[in-house]
Amino acid sequence: METYDIFLDLAIIIAGAKFLALVARKFHAPQVVGMIAAGLIIGPSCFGIVRQTAFLSNMAEIGVVLLMFSAGLETNLRDLVKTGPKAVAIACSGVFIPLIAGAIYFFCFYGFAPVGSDSFLEGIFVGTIMTATSVSITVQTLKELGKINSLVGTTIVSAAIIDDIIGIIVLTVVIGFKSGNADVGKTFINICLFFAFSIIVGYILYKGFRYIEKKWPHTRRIPIMGLTLCFVMAYVAEAVFGIADITGAYFAGIILCNTRASEYIDEKMNISSYMLFGPVFFASIGLKTNITAINSSILLFSVGFIIVALLGKIIGCGLVGRMCGFKGNDKYKIGVGMMTRGEVALIVAQKGLAAGMVDSVYFASVILLIVVSSVATPILLKLLFSKDAEAEAAA
Amino acid sequence: METYDIFLDLAIIIAGAKFLALVARKFHAPQVVGMIAAGLIIGPSCFGIVRQTAFLSNMAEIGVVLLMFSAGLETNLRDLVKTGPKAVAIACSGVFIPLIAGAIYFFCFYGFAPVGSDSFLEGIFVGTIMTATSVSITVQTLKELGKINSLVGTTIVSAAIIDDIIGIIVLTVVIGFKSGNADVGKTFINICLFFAFSIIVGYILYKGFRYIEKKWPHTRRIPIMGLTLCFVMAYVAEAVFGIADITGAYFAGIILCNTRASEYIDEKMNISSYMLFGPVFFASIGLKTNITAINSSILLFSVGFIIVALLGKIIGCGLVGRMCGFKGNDKYKIGVGMMTRGEVALIVAQKGLAAGMVDSVYFASVILLIVVSSVATPILLKLLFSKDAEAEAAA
Repeated sequence: METYDIFLDLAIIIAGAKFLALVARKFHAPQVVGMIAAGLIIGPSCFGIVRQTAFLSNMAEIGVVLLMFSAGLETNLRDLVKTGPKAVAIACSGVFIPLIAGAIYFFCFYGFAPVGSDSFLEGIFVGTIMTATSVSITVQTLKELGKINSLVGTTIVSAAIIDDIIGIIVLTVVIGFKSGNADVGKTFINICLFFAFSIIVGYILYKGFRYIEKKWPHTRRIPIMGLTLCFVMAYVAEAVFGIADITGAYFAGIILCNTRASEYIDEKMNISSYMLFGPVFFASIGLKTNITAINSSILLFSVGFIIVALLGKIIGCGLVGRMCGFKGNDKYKIGVGMMTRGEVALIVAQKGLAAGMVDSVYFASVILLIVVSSVATPILLKLLFSKDAEAEAAA
Repeated sequence: METYDIFLDLAIIIAGAKFLALVARKFHAPQVVGMIAAGLIIGPSCFGIVRQTAFLSNMAEIGVVLLMFSAGLETNLRDLVKTGPKAVAIACSGVFIPLIAGAIYFFCFYGFAPVGSDSFLEGIFVGTIMTATSVSITVQTLKELGKINSLVGTTIVSAAIIDDIIGIIVLTVVIGFKSGNADVGKTFINICLFFAFSIIVGYILYKGFRYIEKKWPHTRRIPIMGLTLCFVMAYVAEAVFGIADITGAYFAGIILCNTRASEYIDEKMNISSYMLFGPVFFASIGLKTNITAINSSILLFSVGFIIVALLGKIIGCGLVGRMCGFKGNDKYKIGVGMMTRGEVALIVAQKGLAAGMVDSVYFASVILLIVVSSVATPILLKLLFSKDAEAEAAA
């Protein structure tokens, strides 16, 4: 591959993503749906013009990290603290209900297996695959709707982050069952250390930033330092503490969200995001997917798998959301906002495959789940928010 | 290498480049010198913290393409047409004088060889290596000084572009001498076709853009379409016509420079450039360089090589610049602006190595030439422009 090939790939992706995003908007669907569809159309599922390369997947990773950084920057810290306990409750329920429901579905489909047998562990693992929420599409939709810093928005984003963290613990435990070597203690300590690290470093940097933004307001160094912090936190989270890079980037945003420069940084970030990295990230979800490889028997299993996975999150998160005081459509928003699955589900499936716990046949189901949830979540979320807006306008 | 490693690399590059750029500014040197120095310091020449990867070199390529697109956008089309013939004259002289001077230097150093012998061709090729101006550092410096759309600025940029094109023809001819298979005609036709293609496509797109910017002014689709055009032209130039991608990107900028949206597009582009792609590009010049591999005998040859290469351009371009009516310091600005060498010189050397015309030992000289000219050009240009500003203020 020659260097100049990247320019053709990028041109096709950004033009296709923007065009289909505008088409999606024309039909009152969120633009992110159009960008994912662009990836499906130009990717191996349809025309196969653009292939996923190492370079594009790195660009996509920068895209999702910038997106989560921006979500952190737009967070209302007071709301975050207020929703913290609720988010933990929603995340727990959103992990365990799909986990149990997924395992039960597996046993219903293939017959119950004795506790501790390989087939039993396989069922548990199929449930584990269902636990990982991928918040990026929800975040993008909430940003489009201007609801990212609403109470519901903050709750969903923080619940999804906590969901990720509980998901890591569950994955470690379940793989530990197989290998008899569960390093749950170490994982848990790492997570606590990351939180402590973020709070201490965050407080020092927050004070430093306050000083800098007062001394040199609205200079280029401010967003550059913000971006540096974002990248460093993304790296440290994953390389040092074994937590997803997007969690680190979100924390970087939280650290800066109460500084006066946060809006300025966010504005500059958003331009790089919407011009290049965002379209590449969302299109690459479609690019990574090859739906032509799916046959009818896999499809049958997948239909149930998808229903259980989506309902598991809607019920699991919505119910606890309601118990936490989210009334009316808000509880559904939380359930729907938490139901998207993304590459994390594929990574979990990959880890299960590597540990010899599940067959590669489930990859097709996971891919279908990603496609269906990626397209359904933004549409449903927009519907729920616009219904409330209508009701408010009528009142 | 894990995906998250890219975040550490990027964080070190953008923080280091910005910090040293500010230090450079403190000492009244252009910021680009600081960014290149950052690459030297974090790269293999000094601490070796960051290594040049395929990903970083792709990011750098995007960086230089965006830079040239921006230079095109900021061009004054009327000035370009006016300076066109002068730029051609300057470029011709700037190619042939270093070519001849370089060959003569080689023969002085190693003794004259009979015409047509391998050693004779080696001398000619050493001269050929000296022909390629790399305009990116000059463009960045002119942008910093706010002189990119001055008459001198436009002349330098268009002369450097033409220089590139004449350089390709010379390279084809010289390599053709060796292989006896010079496809000069094809190269020349390709270049003419690219010009014709740019003018026709450019005119149609210009009309299209005028319509779009009137219908949807200041919407996100405008810069996205501009960026798409930039990437497509960069790709087409290199993949279809065999011309450098940066030339295509510059033409894309020229196509749009007379639309009303050009400033809006440029503003959005510049943010991505200064936040991420620009620092990566300039730091990667330093990253690619390992000055520790240079010994004393190479150094001796290199000192003369550098002097001849720099003076060849200053005299070659400055003299013709003066004949074209650039008086006072302006002729020196043109000479100095054209003397920077960059990766193109390395690519030429690489092609010569592949064709069996030169030894790899000259790589060290080329690298030293790149470092010296990259650091000297911005400093000298700034000095020349500030002298004129002082003289104006005094008058």
